[in-house]
Amino acid sequence: MNVEIFETKERLLADNDSEAEKTRLKLRESGTFFVNLMGSPGAGKTSVLLRLLPLLSGSCRIGVMEADVDSDVDAKTIAGTGTKVIQLHTGGLCHMDADMTARGLEALGTGDLDLIFLENVGNLVCPAEFDVGADLRMMILSVPEGDDKPLQYPLMFSICDVLLINKIDVLPYFDFDMAACEKYVHRLNPDMKIFPICARTGEGIEAWADWLRQQVKAWIE
Amino acid sequence: MNVEIFETKERLLADNDSEAEKTRLKLRESGTFFVNLMGSPGAGKTSVLLRLLPLLSGSCRIGVMEADVDSDVDAKTIAGTGTKVIQLHTGGLCHMDADMTARGLEALGTGDLDLIFLENVGNLVCPAEFDVGADLRMMILSVPEGDDKPLQYPLMFSICDVLLINKIDVLPYFDFDMAACEKYVHRLNPDMKIFPICARTGEGIEAWADWLRQQVKAWIE
Repeated sequence: MNVEIFETKERLLADNDSEAEKTRLKLRESGTFFVNLMGSPGAGKTSVLLRLLPLLSGSCRIGVMEADVDSDVDAKTIAGTGTKVIQLHTGGLCHMDADMTARGLEALGTGDLDLIFLENVGNLVCPAEFDVGADLRMMILSVPEGDDKPLQYPLMFSICDVLLINKIDVLPYFDFDMAACEKYVHRLNPDMKIFPICARTGEGIEAWADWLRQQVKAWIE
Repeated sequence: MNVEIFETKERLLADNDSEAEKTRLKLRESGTFFVNLMGSPGAGKTSVLLRLLPLLSGSCRIGVMEADVDSDVDAKTIAGTGTKVIQLHTGGLCHMDADMTARGLEALGTGDLDLIFLENVGNLVCPAEFDVGADLRMMILSVPEGDDKPLQYPLMFSICDVLLINKIDVLPYFDFDMAACEKYVHRLNPDMKIFPICARTGEGIEAWADWLRQQVKAWIE
C-alpha cells in the first residue's frame, strides 16, 4: 500500500510577533519574568504549577493566567494556593495569541509581580505558532503520551526552552524510552533543557525549581 | 484571591457546514460509512485502529486517512496492516476542515470502500468545531489524561456519538474515577455510547468492534 503525501497547506498565522515584542519590552521595564507553559490536555500543567508555586513564593511575587476554552476549574485550584490568578476564556480558540495575552496581563495587573505563568490551552499544535511575549517557553510531555511525540509535533519541541517529562512514576507501566525521547528532542532542539519530574510524588520538582529560580535571577540582574 | 473571568471571545469558524453536508451526501450515494476519530496527542488513536482493523477487514473494505501536522509515522504503521491509507499533512493546522477532508477523500479514492476512518490531528479543541462530513464522531480519552477532561473540553464530549476510554490497564496507577467520568460525559451528552477499552491488551475491543459493525450494517440497510 502506498503512503501518499497529500499537502493541504494553509496558514492562519497573522503577524502577531510585533504585539508579542511589545509585551516582552513592557514586562522587562517593570522587571517581570513571563513564562508560557504548554502541553497536551492532561499532561499535568496545573498539577506541576501546584507543586512549584510553594517553592518559589518565598523568593518572588507570582501571578498565574489560566487559559481555557471553558470552565474555571484550574483557576480555582490555583487560587486555593493563595496565588494571584486570573481565568482567561478563549471563546473556543485552541491557543492564546499575543493580543489576547496582552489583554489578560492588563486584567491580571502585573506591576507588583516578579514572575508570571501563562498556562496555555491544552494543545501541542497552535500554541507553538503564537509568540505571546514570554521570556521562557516551557512544555510538559507526560510519559503516557509516548516517547514519539517529538516526531509528531516537532514545532512545539523546537520552539521551547525547557521540557518537563512528567508522570515518571508510571514509567514501569508504559513503553516509554527516556533515552530515545531525549534523542528525538535534542535532534530538533539541541539546547532544550530537560527535567524528568513527577507532580504526584514531587520527584525532580526541586531541581527544576532551583533552575527556574536561577533563570529569573539571571534575567533580573 | 478572586477568580476573574476574562472573556476573549473570537471565532475562526467559517461556514464549513454546507461543504461537509456535500461530502456526507456523496459518500451516502456510494454506500460508504465515514468515521471521524478524535482525541488528544497520545490518547491511542493509531493503536486503537491497529486493533480494530483486523476485526473488521473480513466484513468490509476499509480506508484510513491519517491527518498529521507533520510526519508520516502513523500512516506507515497503518499501511503495515495492508489497509488502504493516505497521509494528510495539514501544514501546521490543528484540525481538519470539510474542504481539506473532501480533498483527502478524493486523493484516497472512495468508490471501492465501505468504511473510512479519518484519524484527526491530536487535539481536543478545534476538531470538535469542524464538521468534516462524517456519519459517526468517535473520540478517545485515555485514563492518564484524567476523568475531569469533559469539564475542560466540553464541546468535544458534546458533539461525539461514541467515547472510547482507552488504557484501562493502567487504572490502578491513576486517580481516574470511571463513574465520575461517565457522569460528567452523560451530563453533557446523555446519548454518548461509552466503551472502556485497552489497545495494548485488547480488552473491550471486540465489544466495540461488534457495535461498530452493527452501526455500519444498519446504515447501509
